Amino acid sequence: MSETDRRTAILLIHCPDRRGIVAAISRFLSEHGGNIVDLDQHVDTEQGVFFLRAEWELRGFALPADGIAEAFRRELAEPFDMTWRLHFSDERPRMAIFASRLAHCLYDLLARWQTGELAVDIPLIISNHDELRPVAKRFGIDFYHLPVTPETKAKVERQQNDLLADYRIDFAVLARYMQILSADFIQAWPERIINIHHSFLPAFAGARPYHAAHERGVKIIGATSHYVTEDLDAGPIIEQDVTRVTHRDSVADLVRKGRDLEQLVLARAVWLHVQRKTLVYRNRTVVFD
Amino acid sequence: MSETDRRTAILLIHCPDRRGIVAAISRFLSEHGGNIVDLDQHVDTEQGVFFLRAEWELRGFALPADGIAEAFRRELAEPFDMTWRLHFSDERPRMAIFASRLAHCLYDLLARWQTGELAVDIPLIISNHDELRPVAKRFGIDFYHLPVTPETKAKVERQQNDLLADYRIDFAVLARYMQILSADFIQAWPERIINIHHSFLPAFAGARPYHAAHERGVKIIGATSHYVTEDLDAGPIIEQDVTRVTHRDSVADLVRKGRDLEQLVLARAVWLHVQRKTLVYRNRTVVFD
Amino acid sequence: MSETDRRTAILLIHCPDRRGIVAAISRFLSEHGGNIVDLDQHVDTEQGVFFLRAEWELRGFALPADGIAEAFRRELAEPFDMTWRLHFSDERPRMAIFASRLAHCLYDLLARWQTGELAVDIPLIISNHDELRPVAKRFGIDFYHLPVTPETKAKVERQQNDLLADYRIDFAVLARYMQILSADFIQAWPERIINIHHSFLPAFAGARPYHAAHERGVKIIGATSHYVTEDLDAGPIIEQDVTRVTHRDSVADLVRKGRDLEQLVLARAVWLHVQRKTLVYRNRTVVFD
Amino acid sequence: MSETDRRTAILLIHCPDRRGIVAAISRFLSEHGGNIVDLDQHVDTEQGVFFLRAEWELRGFALPADGIAEAFRRELAEPFDMTWRLHFSDERPRMAIFASRLAHCLYDLLARWQTGELAVDIPLIISNHDELRPVAKRFGIDFYHLPVTPETKAKVERQQNDLLADYRIDFAVLARYMQILSADFIQAWPERIINIHHSFLPAFAGARPYHAAHERGVKIIGATSHYVTEDLDAGPIIEQDVTRVTHRDSVADLVRKGRDLEQLVLARAVWLHVQRKTLVYRNRTVVFD
Repeated sequence: MSETDRRTAILLIHCPDRRGIVAAISRFLSEHGGNIVDLDQHVDTEQGVFFLRAEWELRGFALPADGIAEAFRRELAEPFDMTWRLHFSDERPRMAIFASRLAHCLYDLLARWQTGELAVDIPLIISNHDELRPVAKRFGIDFYHLPVTPETKAKVERQQNDLLADYRIDFAVLARYMQILSADFIQAWPERIINIHHSFLPAFAGARPYHAAHERGVKIIGATSHYVTEDLDAGPIIEQDVTRVTHRDSVADLVRKGRDLEQLVLARAVWLHVQRKTLVYRNRTVVFD
Repeated sequence: MSETDRRTAILLIHCPDRRGIVAAISRFLSEHGGNIVDLDQHVDTEQGVFFLRAEWELRGFALPADGIAEAFRRELAEPFDMTWRLHFSDERPRMAIFASRLAHCLYDLLARWQTGELAVDIPLIISNHDELRPVAKRFGIDFYHLPVTPETKAKVERQQNDLLADYRIDFAVLARYMQILSADFIQAWPERIINIHHSFLPAFAGARPYHAAHERGVKIIGATSHYVTEDLDAGPIIEQDVTRVTHRDSVADLVRKGRDLEQLVLARAVWLHVQRKTLVYRNRTVVFD
Repeated sequence: MSETDRRTAILLIHCPDRRGIVAAISRFLSEHGGNIVDLDQHVDTEQGVFFLRAEWELRGFALPADGIAEAFRRELAEPFDMTWRLHFSDERPRMAIFASRLAHCLYDLLARWQTGELAVDIPLIISNHDELRPVAKRFGIDFYHLPVTPETKAKVERQQNDLLADYRIDFAVLARYMQILSADFIQAWPERIINIHHSFLPAFAGARPYHAAHERGVKIIGATSHYVTEDLDAGPIIEQDVTRVTHRDSVADLVRKGRDLEQLVLARAVWLHVQRKTLVYRNRTVVFD
Repeated sequence: MSETDRRTAILLIHCPDRRGIVAAISRFLSEHGGNIVDLDQHVDTEQGVFFLRAEWELRGFALPADGIAEAFRRELAEPFDMTWRLHFSDERPRMAIFASRLAHCLYDLLARWQTGELAVDIPLIISNHDELRPVAKRFGIDFYHLPVTPETKAKVERQQNDLLADYRIDFAVLARYMQILSADFIQAWPERIINIHHSFLPAFAGARPYHAAHERGVKIIGATSHYVTEDLDAGPIIEQDVTRVTHRDSVADLVRKGRDLEQLVLARAVWLHVQRKTLVYRNRTVVFD
């Protein structure tokens, strides 16, 4: 089967819950001859909201790819008051990486990109330090060193925005980027900036979480990947994971053990985002996994 | 809302996969005014089999509870060649427990029954030893001591079968029951006997798994709950869990750490079974959780 | 070997770190012919503190059991400025349980006591509600219903203290006891009250942690057992554990999944305490496990 | 403090257990003025074997580094019949990587080497395929493509051995190298070849473990890193880890989820080996972590 033949369409929706939504959507797909590859739905009964992710093959589907959106809007989205996105499996999002001095998350993302696990293009790395330039060079990616000071921050963010535009970036990953982005910057990229925080949020938000965890004497540490919002470390959580520690572990041990968590959790979150498996509603994610 | 009002119907099906199944089922439910509480489906693309669990409220459903089966058979099950079961949430299955000398799984199941977590009746405990009689008495449950020897085994199994019939038992749980049931006995109770094995199957099947795990020097031990089939420790797995061990752990430590796994994994498996969330197909389970 | 023969002594110490401590302690034990069963030490290099747990057989030990403390004080504790405790394996601490309405942790502790896993006596259960009286009765344990209101709180705590004294209680376990103890009460029982909090502390301290976790949209929930101090939910952590949740889990699901964590984490913490494996230093625990 | 000042000596021993070993070793270290950084011991009471790892600062130690071995042999190793190794923290072992077509473990090890997490030199990569040459080139490492067929296997192993000698390799890591080494080759490198097997051993040893795990319907998959011995997949286990899977996971999903386990478990095992924290006794490891 050729690549074209395997192309799928992916629909992500949420709408007020009511009877008959699944029936209507599945009828829409089956009447046009869609072979459903994956169908996952969820009802938040407390909030009365219906969520759905559907993926179906374009081969044999009666509607042309560029006609689906219009038909869906008319037949389903408007009658059911849906918020929705339509994607195609052969889109290849363009991803930028922001980093500082720590290389582990950067290396991990680049390796997953090289092995084909992450179906993205990575044309751009931005850093407020110059240390990771050799890593970018090693993988043939453009690297921009944009140091940030309180005075230059606004100007640097404009440069960053220009770069994201120039490189036609779809979403950005903060791979242990140790700068806080401004509200303006964040608002321009809603649900399109993914961060990794080195704690089990909401515990130990803010700076130096491993020191704080050590001080508190916790027996488990974690890492959290989330979409960035204006509230620091408080955006919708995509993925978390943890590992055990003991009184024997110094802060340096927590840092070492935490690195594995950070790169793993960030990689999973980016993968879920790229696979169009995440949906945000009122600061929480629905992860169709 | 009264208990009657909250009654739900639960449908578990599998059938050859083809287009339009979800549409047909969801139309069946929505056309009769069914408010879907939970809908979960899975397609095994490799085997071409479709699986579904649907749960909907009976209140407001146009068909009477005792008319659903017939309507479903005619409109859906026969046209789509479905294998299916229909349950109602107010059924309260009757569960028997088989035990030997170890009390922890027995205590755990009885506590979950008493606190209402397990919506079952437990009228009967059978054991090949007499040690656990006081536990049964403490919870007011009939206890039968049926010792098993190679000579008496066939006779004892007839007694066990009679007891299960007399007490109108729906399914049995082997809570560390250290006897191997005969093929005849097992065949009479397909997917209705749940066992806990004290290893991460398929590793360390058979006797003395903690000794074998210690001897092999594994760094993680586990427990496995499965439906009992004629092949020893080889039935469809419902649930598994693991915990870390080190070179410091003696066999006695593995036994102690393993107890927590055993009772937890068994309890989860029984809960899934009672909630009608398990479906067996070709020696594997689909667990709609 | 008789029980007497297997008796062991357990020493828990901490002191300012300096060269030669291990040599001095191990020489003390070996010169008196002690057969070391377990020896575990830890140096907190940051704080410059040495910690040690040693367990050795009394059989063949040159000093009589009641002479060890004096010899140890003279030869080691005073020269090295040690804070220390000496225990014997045949001590059987007397444990009280405080509970409210939820039965799962109570049942779990009682089962572990009955099966011999917890080497304690449990003569006393205190509750601010009467619902769990039948559970206490089932296990033959005295049960006191002491309702608490803001007005009666001080008086009730005096009654509780009298009961703990009358029953010669060594330590108390708060098994989902939903009352906050006063600073006076807590100060009278330093490192002798063990609580289970139904969150991954320090996240979601205080009331309704499952609601807060659901609201925040975390992907993992936890439970934490700690020694009670005057700062609410901020005492030294003995044990924690976690489990994954998804957007599908309602608050009720978190409560259900959390129950297993709570009883398991609490049971492990109590076991560690009873085995004399915990040592508190500056609001953190050293757990010799 | 200069690098020289922080140099430590590491001693790994095992010997028949008897009273006074800890006292003798700690006296040896304290009498020569050694500041112990880490001391970890274990007694296998069943086998009557004593294990110890000690790490102490060379600064201020009365014996010169090159005189420690001789003094230790005379004063302790011979009297106590010890099997032992002495290492120094500034040794930098030379590590070769064997790989085939899969890049994830290779990338992961190289990233950990680049970031300084693994204190090794990696001068050599050997593969039976040519696909990973660009990865080696990217990191500036010599790459040898040595295809293996049944006919050429013996000859290729001689070439491999020559390369390991030429590059003065201390130990080798099989990073998903899909060839079985001969008994001769393995015997020449005892406890110096580390493999990653993509299952939770001893379950699913041999070929295609993910297919076997899927077929068996397990709810958890794992990965195992072990020292290579002549018995395939049966050498002493250094590290294992697991992750949950469901009926929704195809074989391809298991492969994807398993990759993260493989690289993480292998990296931990290599780190433990490099840190001199592993000791093998009768096909099991003692891991001083």
